[in-house]
Amino acid sequence: MGNTFGHLFRVTTWGESHGGAVGAVVDGCPPRLPLSEADIQAELDRRRPGQSRVTTQRREADVCHILSGVFEGQTLGTPISILVWNTDAKPEHYAPFRHLYRPSHADYAYEAKYGIRNWQGGGRASARETIGRVAAGAIARKLLRERCGTEIVAYVKQIHTLYANVDPATVTREQVEANAVRCPDAACAEEMLARIDWARRQGDSLGGVVEAVVRQVPVGLGEPVFDKLEADLAKALMSLPASKGFEIGSGFAGTTLTGSQHNDPYEMREGRVRTRSNNSGGVQGGISIGEPLILRVAFKPTATIAKPQQTVSVHGEPAVLEARGRHDPCVLPRAVPIVEAMVALVLADHYLRHKAQCDW
Amino acid sequence: MGNTFGHLFRVTTWGESHGGAVGAVVDGCPPRLPLSEADIQAELDRRRPGQSRVTTQRREADVCHILSGVFEGQTLGTPISILVWNTDAKPEHYAPFRHLYRPSHADYAYEAKYGIRNWQGGGRASARETIGRVAAGAIARKLLRERCGTEIVAYVKQIHTLYANVDPATVTREQVEANAVRCPDAACAEEMLARIDWARRQGDSLGGVVEAVVRQVPVGLGEPVFDKLEADLAKALMSLPASKGFEIGSGFAGTTLTGSQHNDPYEMREGRVRTRSNNSGGVQGGISIGEPLILRVAFKPTATIAKPQQTVSVHGEPAVLEARGRHDPCVLPRAVPIVEAMVALVLADHYLRHKAQCDW
Amino acid sequence: MGNTFGHLFRVTTWGESHGGAVGAVVDGCPPRLPLSEADIQAELDRRRPGQSRVTTQRREADVCHILSGVFEGQTLGTPISILVWNTDAKPEHYAPFRHLYRPSHADYAYEAKYGIRNWQGGGRASARETIGRVAAGAIARKLLRERCGTEIVAYVKQIHTLYANVDPATVTREQVEANAVRCPDAACAEEMLARIDWARRQGDSLGGVVEAVVRQVPVGLGEPVFDKLEADLAKALMSLPASKGFEIGSGFAGTTLTGSQHNDPYEMREGRVRTRSNNSGGVQGGISIGEPLILRVAFKPTATIAKPQQTVSVHGEPAVLEARGRHDPCVLPRAVPIVEAMVALVLADHYLRHKAQCDW
Amino acid sequence: MGNTFGHLFRVTTWGESHGGAVGAVVDGCPPRLPLSEADIQAELDRRRPGQSRVTTQRREADVCHILSGVFEGQTLGTPISILVWNTDAKPEHYAPFRHLYRPSHADYAYEAKYGIRNWQGGGRASARETIGRVAAGAIARKLLRERCGTEIVAYVKQIHTLYANVDPATVTREQVEANAVRCPDAACAEEMLARIDWARRQGDSLGGVVEAVVRQVPVGLGEPVFDKLEADLAKALMSLPASKGFEIGSGFAGTTLTGSQHNDPYEMREGRVRTRSNNSGGVQGGISIGEPLILRVAFKPTATIAKPQQTVSVHGEPAVLEARGRHDPCVLPRAVPIVEAMVALVLADHYLRHKAQCDW
Repeated sequence: MGNTFGHLFRVTTWGESHGGAVGAVVDGCPPRLPLSEADIQAELDRRRPGQSRVTTQRREADVCHILSGVFEGQTLGTPISILVWNTDAKPEHYAPFRHLYRPSHADYAYEAKYGIRNWQGGGRASARETIGRVAAGAIARKLLRERCGTEIVAYVKQIHTLYANVDPATVTREQVEANAVRCPDAACAEEMLARIDWARRQGDSLGGVVEAVVRQVPVGLGEPVFDKLEADLAKALMSLPASKGFEIGSGFAGTTLTGSQHNDPYEMREGRVRTRSNNSGGVQGGISIGEPLILRVAFKPTATIAKPQQTVSVHGEPAVLEARGRHDPCVLPRAVPIVEAMVALVLADHYLRHKAQCDW
Repeated sequence: MGNTFGHLFRVTTWGESHGGAVGAVVDGCPPRLPLSEADIQAELDRRRPGQSRVTTQRREADVCHILSGVFEGQTLGTPISILVWNTDAKPEHYAPFRHLYRPSHADYAYEAKYGIRNWQGGGRASARETIGRVAAGAIARKLLRERCGTEIVAYVKQIHTLYANVDPATVTREQVEANAVRCPDAACAEEMLARIDWARRQGDSLGGVVEAVVRQVPVGLGEPVFDKLEADLAKALMSLPASKGFEIGSGFAGTTLTGSQHNDPYEMREGRVRTRSNNSGGVQGGISIGEPLILRVAFKPTATIAKPQQTVSVHGEPAVLEARGRHDPCVLPRAVPIVEAMVALVLADHYLRHKAQCDW
Repeated sequence: MGNTFGHLFRVTTWGESHGGAVGAVVDGCPPRLPLSEADIQAELDRRRPGQSRVTTQRREADVCHILSGVFEGQTLGTPISILVWNTDAKPEHYAPFRHLYRPSHADYAYEAKYGIRNWQGGGRASARETIGRVAAGAIARKLLRERCGTEIVAYVKQIHTLYANVDPATVTREQVEANAVRCPDAACAEEMLARIDWARRQGDSLGGVVEAVVRQVPVGLGEPVFDKLEADLAKALMSLPASKGFEIGSGFAGTTLTGSQHNDPYEMREGRVRTRSNNSGGVQGGISIGEPLILRVAFKPTATIAKPQQTVSVHGEPAVLEARGRHDPCVLPRAVPIVEAMVALVLADHYLRHKAQCDW
Repeated sequence: MGNTFGHLFRVTTWGESHGGAVGAVVDGCPPRLPLSEADIQAELDRRRPGQSRVTTQRREADVCHILSGVFEGQTLGTPISILVWNTDAKPEHYAPFRHLYRPSHADYAYEAKYGIRNWQGGGRASARETIGRVAAGAIARKLLRERCGTEIVAYVKQIHTLYANVDPATVTREQVEANAVRCPDAACAEEMLARIDWARRQGDSLGGVVEAVVRQVPVGLGEPVFDKLEADLAKALMSLPASKGFEIGSGFAGTTLTGSQHNDPYEMREGRVRTRSNNSGGVQGGISIGEPLILRVAFKPTATIAKPQQTVSVHGEPAVLEARGRHDPCVLPRAVPIVEAMVALVLADHYLRHKAQCDW
């Protein structure tokens, strides 16, 4: 269980990092949505490793194949099966460590839970699992854009101790894609690149924060009480590897305001009810109110580092792990399209849920 | 939809703040768990308003009735229906505001989504809805304690700009319940009380952070990839009214560490694999590893304040809202048992899920 | 688990026959549907025991209370909680048999599964559990009628060896309600009444078949491949106590036809695609095509009889069960509104599912 | 939606008959179950067309590939992705009929629901969709056999007007596989073969009944009240293409018995509670009691026939359909492994559900 997300727009992902392939099945996509492999490939390419000096050196083409659910360029309303072959799997790289639990990886957790694990890479805990999410998210994103004009933009807000200055109201994907760290604050991006290089040289790794803004959100998405929009967003984003925190709107910082500072006054604007401020982050009572959604996800520094680490073997003996080979000092840039994909999946699901129960 | 939580240990809550009653149905609780109304009442009493000067003045006995699923002091394995009558509902208090959208409340969101709302209080968005959660959580908590010895302790970690100093390894419920703000740092608790009084006098409100620690967590809870333990915890806690942020382990603060600082080295201790530090917060790869769970929830300042506020009417006209009557300047102390309840519900669900798929 | 039905229009039932009450929570009903307790009571009254000589002698007013989800005569879009008190529970009637497993009842099965059972009546296996279904079904039925003009009529088609002659195309509820057995074939109904009296005198019981027809079914309900409309109908109806068989359209009898006899030729009629015959029973490929749904449910003879029966005690000793008191020789007439309720629940759920994914 | 089955042992199938491939993802299978492609292939080979004169002439190797979830011969507890390429798809065969609705096929239903359909064969309504079910069922079956010794045997009980004489208590798979119609009554099997040949010569088709028996069923499977074992079995089997009826135990025939004839008396046998007769078909109150499960599924005659048929075009004009090429006059023999697969999926799911909630 646990490999399916969504109630109406549902994605099931499958695949280990070093099995034959990874993929996803998307069930519940409405019929007659124009869709091609190119729509999906565009997002997969953003996620792909080996693109630049800031990401892992694994080289995968990550070419997606749509095996069902699309006919003559349109969705059929039936399950869309997407497959990406693993072509650059090098299980032998992992052989030296198969008897060691890599600290803060999932090795020990899987072994303890299942009594078995695929030691050839991260298995299901690998970042390769997110390929299925990004592919499914590309479909969700297209649905939202075609139906509602919804626009989702995520970007690197923080790396290590460097904080970017970004205006969520105006930031564009072009600005995000303008540099290798996907940070639209160009000056800060330069510093971030330098910091990542520093970490690589140290054999160390960095974490940070990805922020996402969603504009043109339909009013009414989200359901009381357990399936509040922010609750499902939190689940979606806290299900990503390495995420340790989530916040929406004012988030943790808002806890130091008083109610009179924090409340968003209503006014009529452009012929409809709007708020003057947006501490709510676009949701009130768990439901979107038509203001931009703003959320942030905290990612811990990558667990894979080159420095020697204390650990234990599968036999319970003390050991020192010295990793070799690929080492990705900062996943934040690649996390950007993944965050967007998860946001798209949540919104598409709630779009259909709202369409079922309510009339626009 | 959206009123059911959990996959195997499932709770469905129902009830508006000013309807006849509120309640919950718990489905999936194992049979032969000793259970009485007293078990549930104890937790409801902690959540109840009107207990002290720091909470809302609404006076409800909140007496719970178990209507099914328990026989001769034990659960039957069938649905447990719990009902609490609304005895102090005063819908007339809300009549003056029925045509105004209260800022940062759910009034406008519900109206926009459903085209109708119960204007007599917060409806489903009211804190009264959490009665069902706390009742169900009491059952989950008892199950976990009886089966696994699991202990869940939450407390107020921060109010406004006041931060408590608490050791999660040793904090006890007795320490938490020792004062009205449920903050085990007695000195800080005094300051918090003063700050809350100040806010009340200003007609204003305060937010803050509740932290929870879970000790004696079974190894192996949580499922890759979407139903990671932290993902389900995040959903559970971000589904609470007024919550704006969630973090586990190192959380947002951990983003400024490097991987070598953040990774938790393994060692053998007490005959099993343990970590020396706990930046992971008790989960790795989405799965509990037997270390204490540590998580935090950010609550914005309460939306209900006594100060006048700009808003619009349901007819789209500018208006000023001047609330009267009850005013709860800080929900944090009452949020403590609710946070514990949500944590218990997630753990009980994953306990059963693990029991289904794996063998201990 | 197992006490919730439906994906979007969801009902959760709870309650033992001799606990304090029985009830249901309906989640997912669209907002602004006019609804009152009278709508529900009308259907509960049809299900109620003690109405005539053909039903059980238990006397329950079965008065329903709506505790949430309705405001000023309309649904709110939030959960609708319905409660019916058990006022005529006589657990002492069951005390003599508490140590015996009643043959073909659920006593042994519950004991074997849960290691505990409420011996005061049938517990969850009691027909009283269907109160929640009928209450929820009344809401579903109203939704379908208001939105689609859908009309659901069920009736007793067969009791023991007596088969009624009924035209599904024209049968009305008035004809069904015209006699105590709810068989619209008046002559056959007389014989059925006599047969039931005969069975009662023998201390024995009878089974039979309920047939249901649904007219004005929207086109497009049902989803490939597992959630075909007939699959969900089968589940709904096979979940009723005492049901042993389900068929749709030509059913088992159709297996002796050839394809050229069985296929339903298409033609244009009233401006749309229609079939000349209806062996399909209104569904093709799991999807409604706008022809009337026709289905049948087989109910075994009631397990409770007055004749002595061989059984064993809970201690594994041979025993003879001699029931006393209430004895309902034929549940078929009371099953009619229950069958209608289940059909309504399935259709309402698929109506919302279709509304989510497709555009009419 | 609708392409996933099961709550804990979950299968999602995907694929059109003439898309690139068909497949299934199985989520929730316990870890460390020995599993190879050969286990699955054995069942797929039984389902495969082109095996003998009684089945469709489509020639597919139907070679299965396990793409994830298995490592070094054992399941990992992660999703098992299975893929079968479509190698003999001949979409051009369907081109002449793309503008006609084939009577009693799903063409019109899909078009009416989705506004689009893959006219190259049956799409999702094709029998090829059942490949995913059979593959998943092979895993479920192996789990049940290894854990509980459970044995599932299905066979052709009736074709057209020919009824086989089979003893469910003793029938073996070897007897079933001994002839091309999978009817263990050898004499009747001969007549069935002749009848099928007659139908083929007529350009017509035949229906019938598949019966299944399950021996060594664990006690306690099934959940009150909606997820009764027979309810989930009914759903599973009524979700198969061409099924029109389902019954368990005494089924429709049992409706002509009285309660004293139908009730199954209890006795102690082999040290546990048993029933002398088995009119219940192995379930009481929705729960397995350790007696053999016995169920039957009615399949209508195949919709594809060679005789000319009245229909309408997609433009609403009257037309005559004259099919050419492949024509499978009776699907019953191939339905046997599919019925077994669906039974296995239901039992595996309820096995895990019982394991979660109850202790053996």
